[in-house]
Amino acid sequence: MSILFDSVWLPTGETAFVTVEGRRIAAITPERPQGPFDRVIDGRGKLLTPGLVNTHCHAAMTLLRGYGEDLPLDRWLNERIFPAEDLLSDRSVYLASGLAVAEMLAGGVTSFSDMYFFCDATARAVAEGGIKANLSRSIVSFDETADYAADTRVQEALALHTAWNGAEEGRIRIDLSLHAEYTNVAPCVRYVAACAAKRSARVQIHLSETEKEHRECLGRHGVTPTRFFLDNGLFEVPVVAAHCVYLDEADREILASHGATAVHNPISNLKLGSGVMPLGETVAAGVTVALGTDGAASNNRLDLLREMQTALLLGKGITRRPEGFTAAEGLRLATENGARSQGREDTGRLAVGCCADLALFDLTGLSNLPVVAPVTALAYSASAADVCLTMVDGRILYENGEFTTLDVEKLKHEFSKMRAGYFN
Amino acid sequence: MSILFDSVWLPTGETAFVTVEGRRIAAITPERPQGPFDRVIDGRGKLLTPGLVNTHCHAAMTLLRGYGEDLPLDRWLNERIFPAEDLLSDRSVYLASGLAVAEMLAGGVTSFSDMYFFCDATARAVAEGGIKANLSRSIVSFDETADYAADTRVQEALALHTAWNGAEEGRIRIDLSLHAEYTNVAPCVRYVAACAAKRSARVQIHLSETEKEHRECLGRHGVTPTRFFLDNGLFEVPVVAAHCVYLDEADREILASHGATAVHNPISNLKLGSGVMPLGETVAAGVTVALGTDGAASNNRLDLLREMQTALLLGKGITRRPEGFTAAEGLRLATENGARSQGREDTGRLAVGCCADLALFDLTGLSNLPVVAPVTALAYSASAADVCLTMVDGRILYENGEFTTLDVEKLKHEFSKMRAGYFN
Repeated sequence: MSILFDSVWLPTGETAFVTVEGRRIAAITPERPQGPFDRVIDGRGKLLTPGLVNTHCHAAMTLLRGYGEDLPLDRWLNERIFPAEDLLSDRSVYLASGLAVAEMLAGGVTSFSDMYFFCDATARAVAEGGIKANLSRSIVSFDETADYAADTRVQEALALHTAWNGAEEGRIRIDLSLHAEYTNVAPCVRYVAACAAKRSARVQIHLSETEKEHRECLGRHGVTPTRFFLDNGLFEVPVVAAHCVYLDEADREILASHGATAVHNPISNLKLGSGVMPLGETVAAGVTVALGTDGAASNNRLDLLREMQTALLLGKGITRRPEGFTAAEGLRLATENGARSQGREDTGRLAVGCCADLALFDLTGLSNLPVVAPVTALAYSASAADVCLTMVDGRILYENGEFTTLDVEKLKHEFSKMRAGYFN
Repeated sequence: MSILFDSVWLPTGETAFVTVEGRRIAAITPERPQGPFDRVIDGRGKLLTPGLVNTHCHAAMTLLRGYGEDLPLDRWLNERIFPAEDLLSDRSVYLASGLAVAEMLAGGVTSFSDMYFFCDATARAVAEGGIKANLSRSIVSFDETADYAADTRVQEALALHTAWNGAEEGRIRIDLSLHAEYTNVAPCVRYVAACAAKRSARVQIHLSETEKEHRECLGRHGVTPTRFFLDNGLFEVPVVAAHCVYLDEADREILASHGATAVHNPISNLKLGSGVMPLGETVAAGVTVALGTDGAASNNRLDLLREMQTALLLGKGITRRPEGFTAAEGLRLATENGARSQGREDTGRLAVGCCADLALFDLTGLSNLPVVAPVTALAYSASAADVCLTMVDGRILYENGEFTTLDVEKLKHEFSKMRAGYFN
């Protein structure tokens, strides 16, 4: 299958012809290449970008979207989220994940990193939807003396890795996951770090999301959460650390020197009252920063473009430096940095030979007029509604409101039926 | 003309039947009323709200959208915006205002407050579009000894008031406007305040938008900008003060005790690096707070729903109190408070007898599923793309992507032609 994007804008502002052959970007040329092509897509007035990467998500939490609003974090968790999560099942996670995949595809997301339960169900939804994902079964541990090899969660996490890592021609990867410092004991961290090293797996964690978490760790262990994980060997493997709102300078240095990724989730952090990650200081310290939506229960969209726009606005506004972050830098966080954090070096960029994981934005709508530079239109005036096409590995998965792999009306119907009876 | 909204959600979460007769809301009932109706609109899965009020805008700045990005404020103004504004004309402002009106209608905005030049052109665009607006010709003054009655800007402002105030059955109102403290001298403030009192006009100003402005006023006058305006009689008339990022406690007390409105423009303030208005403290001081987008050059959308969502997120996140502002409070800022600031007491609310200035949001899309409470879906997961109908004075101006009053394709074409030659 060969597809030509005819006269699209690139993020650089140039107009180009982008040829996709099979799963890869085959050519990017200033002149129209010789055909024939199986499909020619009119790119006039449209911006082609690498697909967006949602680097921290709990996809199945679409189930709990809007369930528990305007509450302080502890009440939100203890009265709403945790009791509801006790009722999760393979079926509810499958349906909720399917809708999450659809929502992300419609918003130009081509890959996401996920941490949750019933991950087999999410993996099936990902396989069917055609998106890429790094999935992980979240591990918690409270017993210092347990046999972690016998722990159900650990077993599930490793079984998931065995069953699904590399599946769907590599679209699905399985990471390991430690939920957070405050939900894990040191021996379990060491055990999971060893498992990850043995399997060459990456590890997803929540890190210094709230001031309370950060402060209580100092009280409990005498060190920050980052240092706690370092001391227990976690940074020997690639780490993707969500939130990082309260890292100190030494923490950032640890992430930078170990090639770990800090995932900025600005909307969830604001909505739950956690605070604002200092983007400028984190980037300046040499840390790779990527972007995530977190789950739909705390966002409430899975809209990585909105996340990128919010990150840029906060980056400028909180430090009062409007020149502090440029639109092009924002796009890099949303694409290349996310892909790299997933260990996917062959995507996240518009370059010949890279996977054709692409998003096409129609910038002809009222909110984008006039387009002085397509990348600043994307960063400051576009919205998820402007996405007109999403492609993964050269396959069009979403185009002009239609999904090619998912029966979204059926999914919505079955989800709504399930959700209506969820608390019975 | 009678229109029935059949089985719509109200912001309270109830399902209701809302009848519009002529320009007014005639009934809101829990049971379906007897017809006949000229039109029945299926409201299932949809939320009906008062139309959104964009309480601080420079509509014609759609002309300069994307022109000058990622720059510090002084370079943005001096190198980009001011030189471009020197080239404005009646024609460019007319076309740019028309597109702004269309964008606002498509986003559920039924009224806006505006401060700019060539306001006759904007008034014509408003008259044609059918939206409501409080327009004002921005006054600046640097000469303490001038004859303000003879000043061109003052004359234009007063002529605008004479020509347009109350036009289009009251849809158009003319306010006066002083650009800001740093762009006006005390005698001119006193003169404009006297004119406003004589004409029962309201006054729009920029107030303490940046720390520099606030600090330099203290240096220049020994008082804050708010106190400067108070001392020169401005608060004797109703004041709508945009930004209010750096008000102190005494300033907020002045606004509260004089019934002035503070307009929160969170996105523009972030994007230009000005900072964040302390929403909680401003509301707690008894100040009426409304919401505005500012111009498209510093936002870059005219999307009041996004503004409301950003205000709520910042209100929760910066103070770290997720329970600090509720979705329903956000909606009140975006509707009733804006209407009140415009002196339009007969709109901004869903109540029998009020003007039928309404927005209808389709909440059946993927990003809003499931709808646990329609008002929190609006506040946290909906987007401008979910607006399916906008009505002003009982007249449908926008429905499902179509405009009933404006030829938007023609406007876009003429705007693009004009914009392409703008700097020649």
